[in-house]
Amino acid sequence: MILFEDIQRYIDKLNYLSKVEDEEILQHMENYAQKVGFPIVGRSVGRFLYLITKLKNPKLIVEVGSGYGYSAYWFAKALSSGKVVLTDYSQDNLEMAKDFLSGAGLIDKVELRLGNGVEIAKEYKNIDILFFDHEKAKYLDSILILKDNLSSGGLVIADNTLWHGKVLEEDVDKQTRKIKEFNEYMFSSQEFFTTLIPLRDGLLVAIKV
Amino acid sequence: MILFEDIQRYIDKLNYLSKVEDEEILQHMENYAQKVGFPIVGRSVGRFLYLITKLKNPKLIVEVGSGYGYSAYWFAKALSSGKVVLTDYSQDNLEMAKDFLSGAGLIDKVELRLGNGVEIAKEYKNIDILFFDHEKAKYLDSILILKDNLSSGGLVIADNTLWHGKVLEEDVDKQTRKIKEFNEYMFSSQEFFTTLIPLRDGLLVAIKV
Ligand SMILES: C[S@@+](CC[C@H](N)C(=O)[O-])C[C@H]1O[C@@H](n2cnc3c(N)ncnc32)[C@H](O)[C@@H]1O
Ligand SMILES: C[S@@+](CC[C@H](N)C(=O)[O-])C[C@H]1O[C@@H](n2cnc3c(N)ncnc32)[C@H](O)[C@@H]1O
Repeated sequence: MILFEDIQRYIDKLNYLSKVEDEEILQHMENYAQKVGFPIVGRSVGRFLYLITKLKNPKLIVEVGSGYGYSAYWFAKALSSGKVVLTDYSQDNLEMAKDFLSGAGLIDKVELRLGNGVEIAKEYKNIDILFFDHEKAKYLDSILILKDNLSSGGLVIADNTLWHGKVLEEDVDKQTRKIKEFNEYMFSSQEFFTTLIPLRDGLLVAIKV
Repeated sequence: MILFEDIQRYIDKLNYLSKVEDEEILQHMENYAQKVGFPIVGRSVGRFLYLITKLKNPKLIVEVGSGYGYSAYWFAKALSSGKVVLTDYSQDNLEMAKDFLSGAGLIDKVELRLGNGVEIAKEYKNIDILFFDHEKAKYLDSILILKDNLSSGGLVIADNTLWHGKVLEEDVDKQTRKIKEFNEYMFSSQEFFTTLIPLRDGLLVAIKV
């Protein structure tokens, strides 16, 4: 019997063996998340986003739900050219993101936009990576609205698609049901080739075919 | 409390919602593995290899330990140009691989080589994806021997790096200890940026910096 939490702990331990350039800034962001209970993607997902971005070499990344820029840090850090558009409802979050990303020398690679990230994303064509970390019940509607804004071969990455394991249950609340529907839509759609990566709270990664 | 096995089962269920071109051949390969107890990477890892290959667009993939070609199927299927070198100690396995990959129309994308995959890999320069699925105790030695044969930005992908969860234990047998040492080496090395993806038995994915 293996507990998922124990596996995540093992991976987390390995992560911290790796020397990264902005360790101080990252720990600052991670400690703040811990202190106020803010749901950032965390180190293992962050590193995975970095790896995927290195492989994809995208020109345009759009985040729906950026918080104070932790996931955006990993995207921006991996970019050789191109930019990350951050979106959030909260001006305070975006101000913090600005400070953190400036500290890491990444501010020239980002655009900070206040408002509904789904509406903002609609303004962009040829999105190479579309990242979802907003209201979980809205993932399915959001991809239906935004899928034509993806470039061919573009990626959809969505966090929390295991939803603390609640998706494993039969009898579920509305939010969980909507996440399950999103997962099922993405896997059965002929427009995407989809995988679900069980890092932390579950990361769905799909490529537009 | 969430069991890792339950999460894997949920992902597996989603995988089978996805229509893939060679479903019949894949099920044949998977059923055979089940019947004789052959350790193929399985559907969720296979799909992940496909996705990574699509992103990487490699010219040369070398597998150390190909068995009868299940993992090679996913690599070859995702290639636009380039080839996959399969290696195995067993001529029977390679014959089966030849049949399966011919059936899927992929035989022109592969090279089948009998012998020690580490020795065979040494013959190639600029390997874009190096895949390890041979003796687990030899992963660390193998990467030390082969890392200069990787292209810059090349990937190392190694299966079974969670080793049925045994890596979580303190007091371990030699094989487990060697896998832990491999993981620790890859995460602490300055030559690689490494992640461990908890799909099935654990897939280490590292990019050469
Ligand atoms: C889970 S947090 C984001 C964490 C961030 N991705 C990270 O890993 O560092 C979700 C954020 O999304 C914002 N949000 C929720 N719905 C949104 C929407 N529709 N558009 C923009 N931001 C949204 C919230 O204000 C909150 O800051
Ligand atoms: C786990 S199975 C491979 C499964 C295959 N990668 C798949 O997912 O379909 C391991 C295989 O590696 C072969 N093998 C073990 N050590 C090897 C080595 N040093 N070189 C080549 N093949 C090796 C074994 O004969 C066996 O068929």
